[in-house]
Amino acid sequence: MSASGSNGLSRRFVLGAFAGLPALPGLLDATAAQAQTGAPLASWNDGPAKQAILDFVRVTTDPSSKDFVPPEERIAEFDQDGTLWVEHPVYTQVVFCLEHVPDLVKARPELKNREPFKTVLSGNREAIAKLSMRDFFEIMLGTQSGMDVEAFREISRKWLARAKHPRWDRPYTELVYQPMIEVLNYLRANDYRTFIATGGSAGFVREYAEKVYGIVPEQVAGTEQAFKYGYDKEHRPILTREPKMVLNNLEAGKIENFWLMYGRRPYAAFGNSSSDDQQMLEYVKAGSGARLSVAVLHDDVKREYAYGPAQGLPNTSVGAFSQEMYDMAKKQYWTIISMKDDWKRIFAFE
Amino acid sequence: MSASGSNGLSRRFVLGAFAGLPALPGLLDATAAQAQTGAPLASWNDGPAKQAILDFVRVTTDPSSKDFVPPEERIAEFDQDGTLWVEHPVYTQVVFCLEHVPDLVKARPELKNREPFKTVLSGNREAIAKLSMRDFFEIMLGTQSGMDVEAFREISRKWLARAKHPRWDRPYTELVYQPMIEVLNYLRANDYRTFIATGGSAGFVREYAEKVYGIVPEQVAGTEQAFKYGYDKEHRPILTREPKMVLNNLEAGKIENFWLMYGRRPYAAFGNSSSDDQQMLEYVKAGSGARLSVAVLHDDVKREYAYGPAQGLPNTSVGAFSQEMYDMAKKQYWTIISMKDDWKRIFAFE
Repeated sequence: MSASGSNGLSRRFVLGAFAGLPALPGLLDATAAQAQTGAPLASWNDGPAKQAILDFVRVTTDPSSKDFVPPEERIAEFDQDGTLWVEHPVYTQVVFCLEHVPDLVKARPELKNREPFKTVLSGNREAIAKLSMRDFFEIMLGTQSGMDVEAFREISRKWLARAKHPRWDRPYTELVYQPMIEVLNYLRANDYRTFIATGGSAGFVREYAEKVYGIVPEQVAGTEQAFKYGYDKEHRPILTREPKMVLNNLEAGKIENFWLMYGRRPYAAFGNSSSDDQQMLEYVKAGSGARLSVAVLHDDVKREYAYGPAQGLPNTSVGAFSQEMYDMAKKQYWTIISMKDDWKRIFAFE
Repeated sequence: MSASGSNGLSRRFVLGAFAGLPALPGLLDATAAQAQTGAPLASWNDGPAKQAILDFVRVTTDPSSKDFVPPEERIAEFDQDGTLWVEHPVYTQVVFCLEHVPDLVKARPELKNREPFKTVLSGNREAIAKLSMRDFFEIMLGTQSGMDVEAFREISRKWLARAKHPRWDRPYTELVYQPMIEVLNYLRANDYRTFIATGGSAGFVREYAEKVYGIVPEQVAGTEQAFKYGYDKEHRPILTREPKMVLNNLEAGKIENFWLMYGRRPYAAFGNSSSDDQQMLEYVKAGSGARLSVAVLHDDVKREYAYGPAQGLPNTSVGAFSQEMYDMAKKQYWTIISMKDDWKRIFAFE
């Protein structure tokens, strides 16, 4: 696939997964969040983005500052896909869901000839790429429903242990941005609590977020389906995933659900996508005192991907960063991260 | 009011609040959660309840134990009303909502002659006591909607600073059970993370839970209404509370929503009410390995209140503990706390 903003699904990883690789034993082989040592933000080049983060932390933690924030209110919110880890050529969780469609169809053969499942089974990369977010939510609800909640934890962990990104041939959990890991650590070293607000399914992200980002399950908000309490044949209580959406964590939902789950306006927010993060970044920046809203611009075609359409970068369906959001960012004094200019390195393994 | 299980609302505190006491300045005057020092559970008498808690912690934290639980999975869940603090003669949050009905009716006079608001305004204690949970949810949605989310934080904090329990004439936030504060501290000292799962509104509880229990907002789950993102007249983004229920955290909802928000089955759960905590205690106990489900029986008519109807105690509408749940507890090996026998003292101020 092209590194310059392919919006198609790779036939290779969809079909590769269909072949049924065995689950790897043991723990996730991921970049563990390390305690901050030495100078903060070591993987950042000096520049306005790094400086904005350092300044924000200084003025909100210095007790003599007019913008001082008490430790209990220090909350920072991070989008995941495209902000903390790679989202191209397609969101990791979409890959996860697509790879479980064959299992679903085996259990419910009537879905075989029904859309969007039929298209997924065809393996036709172009057709799959045209599926809408609504189609993906239907696939998510289909592949993640009717099962015991703890069985789903196991399925997620096994998949994460074996699945690899087609470009780097490494587990997805290694494709986290080292500069952002440093931001997480730096904020926590300054008594900020760090949260993920993802458009993906919270239950999936919770299976690796602590190990990969140092973020515990109660600090992960995401899209989530309904759960139903009942009893099995032996009259043991069970909790099952139901094919009904309860929380849609996209667009305004990302900030509405943050309040539902935590009851606070964050002081800092990091995102990258117009359809996913715009309201979150806008709302955080509009708060009283010093607030930090940061948007990651993917402009590094060589080391990662380049996509916009902001600043004339290629337009893609995954994680699009519109020129409108870019203009809003400038007008509202958000901080823009240029991956190309601001980051010395992208990944820990480099 | 009678200490032996009055299920009526005290006319005194409803009408007292209607008179409009001034807001007290400053912080909550509450029992702060203290780090555990000396022997654990100092306010507990030796007996099966104390021993069950000590044994559970020992077998789940000893690495050589077959029931060892890795620290990241150590989660304990607590009901609030009747489990962590006093719930009689009426739930604190119901008092809070009732006291805000006059403000609501001032803003929306058409509600004055509509039920359940008409009954609340009548001050008729017997009639108010007969209001259903559905009526109270309508009052909650009425009094907590249409306002900015941060304005609601302020309203909650002001009320908590001035409101007092009619029997002890102390802030509600002082009426927390000292033996349970010791359990929270003891669990945390053993790397358990502690959560509240309340039938009340999460947003209200989050305003004092950190100070009173040492429980941060992201560890508070509760009943909650919808939030809506929009813009004010000056085009500034605002988030408002909407008159629509999203999460109902009673009965099975208490464990369904726990999974929605955290994606984990707790290893320990503490509750007291049949209509509120039964499924949570049952589900936790049914998990693999060592699990602790604890039910608080209010059998101390002298130092607190006595209500069942389990064990022949008076039946009340607030926090009822049915004989059926008591029998289930015995059959499933839950731990029962007798407040009379197991607790040396009830409150820190005694």
